[in-house]
Amino acid sequence: MKFDVLTLFPEMFEALNHSILKKAQEKNIIQINVTNIRDFAYNKHKKVDDYPYGGGAGMVMQPEPIYNAVDYIVEKYGYKPYTVIMSPRGKRFEQRDAKRLVEKEHILMICGHYEGIDERVLNIVDEEISIGDFVLTGGEIASMAIIDCISRLVPGVLQKQQSYEDESFYDGLLEYPQYTRPEEFRGMRVPEVLLSGHHENIRKWRKYQSLKITYERRPDLLKNKTLTKEEQEMLNDIIKQNMSLK
Amino acid sequence: MKFDVLTLFPEMFEALNHSILKKAQEKNIIQINVTNIRDFAYNKHKKVDDYPYGGGAGMVMQPEPIYNAVDYIVEKYGYKPYTVIMSPRGKRFEQRDAKRLVEKEHILMICGHYEGIDERVLNIVDEEISIGDFVLTGGEIASMAIIDCISRLVPGVLQKQQSYEDESFYDGLLEYPQYTRPEEFRGMRVPEVLLSGHHENIRKWRKYQSLKITYERRPDLLKNKTLTKEEQEMLNDIIKQNMSLK
Repeated sequence: MKFDVLTLFPEMFEALNHSILKKAQEKNIIQINVTNIRDFAYNKHKKVDDYPYGGGAGMVMQPEPIYNAVDYIVEKYGYKPYTVIMSPRGKRFEQRDAKRLVEKEHILMICGHYEGIDERVLNIVDEEISIGDFVLTGGEIASMAIIDCISRLVPGVLQKQQSYEDESFYDGLLEYPQYTRPEEFRGMRVPEVLLSGHHENIRKWRKYQSLKITYERRPDLLKNKTLTKEEQEMLNDIIKQNMSLK
Repeated sequence: MKFDVLTLFPEMFEALNHSILKKAQEKNIIQINVTNIRDFAYNKHKKVDDYPYGGGAGMVMQPEPIYNAVDYIVEKYGYKPYTVIMSPRGKRFEQRDAKRLVEKEHILMICGHYEGIDERVLNIVDEEISIGDFVLTGGEIASMAIIDCISRLVPGVLQKQQSYEDESFYDGLLEYPQYTRPEEFRGMRVPEVLLSGHHENIRKWRKYQSLKITYERRPDLLKNKTLTKEEQEMLNDIIKQNMSLK
């Protein structure tokens, strides 16, 4: 999987040279190429922004350096990668988008500044993506989040089992509580069932906890999920417990 | 505003030493202190994770090094900052959360690995935060997004006008299209109204565009918004236009 990033702050992307993504890059399973938009501002002061037409606060990124940088990418590869731009107006990114985008194999990401990017840039963009309803200084951090999330789905990046964990988690439920050593820490004990060695009880306990946490925190996720008979019975019990507490 | 971050990958946070956050740190309006959790693993191999009780894939971060690191922070400042943990089970972060959290003045952020963090850590956490329904390798990138977003609300970080822009944008509408020089670029012209100098027409055009984009892409945002008479009239027109296109 290849990512090309156009940004005014290429150094920020060194944050992706750690942990799992570092190994994936070393094994050449993932390539992340970062290009400085400023290198494509062919004017004396390498200026990339200017005042907005019609007035208003902030500066707007000019179309020309971005188009020039995209031209360079197209020339470099002989084709134009699937092009996304980070924007608060975009579709809110979810795990299912990662699954869709990993199929593109090569993605070009344009990081603008949210104060504004010239609208004409959208003519060379396939998709606008937002990571959520909040304002960031630039598209860089959002872009890193998306590269991280998509990369995890590329075969070979995660160990087989980890990958399965992700899948099961995004089966539509929030994760059950996890415990590791020591058994007792500052007076807090690991739930007995997890120490029992009784696999079926452990499975049921975890399923119940997942359903309970999801019901309490993100009931919206349950609406889109088809429940098994076991899950439905557990959920009925959770709802009953919950009502008797009130 | 102070941020303390507990992480296994402190170098990643160098990504915050750019652009607006760099200036804010230089002016000492924002402080970002990053602490390596591994420094608080008092065992021979500085091990911070172990297998999950009850079995399953992946490793789980142990409670002890995290508690030790939090103890260190408490001792350093003489109090425990408001403590958040990045977790896909958390509340989905939105701009209104940034407004709420900026009031805390000092936030301690714990970055775990999503494969699991020992549940007992939640006993010293005030709030679980998620940036969205997608899986990341760790809490680091999510944490950077939140630091960036909150910092923008700290007085002095943004110029007064920029700050106003954020406010108006998160007044509940998506942003109108922005244009800057040149007037014509590769055959694409800036909309005439923005070149007209007619402030009232520009204001109306922008308002209309904001409403139109919001209606088309995020109608959910309109439900929570109280519309002025002008906005309601524009919206009626947009809906009418939209129906005649179908």
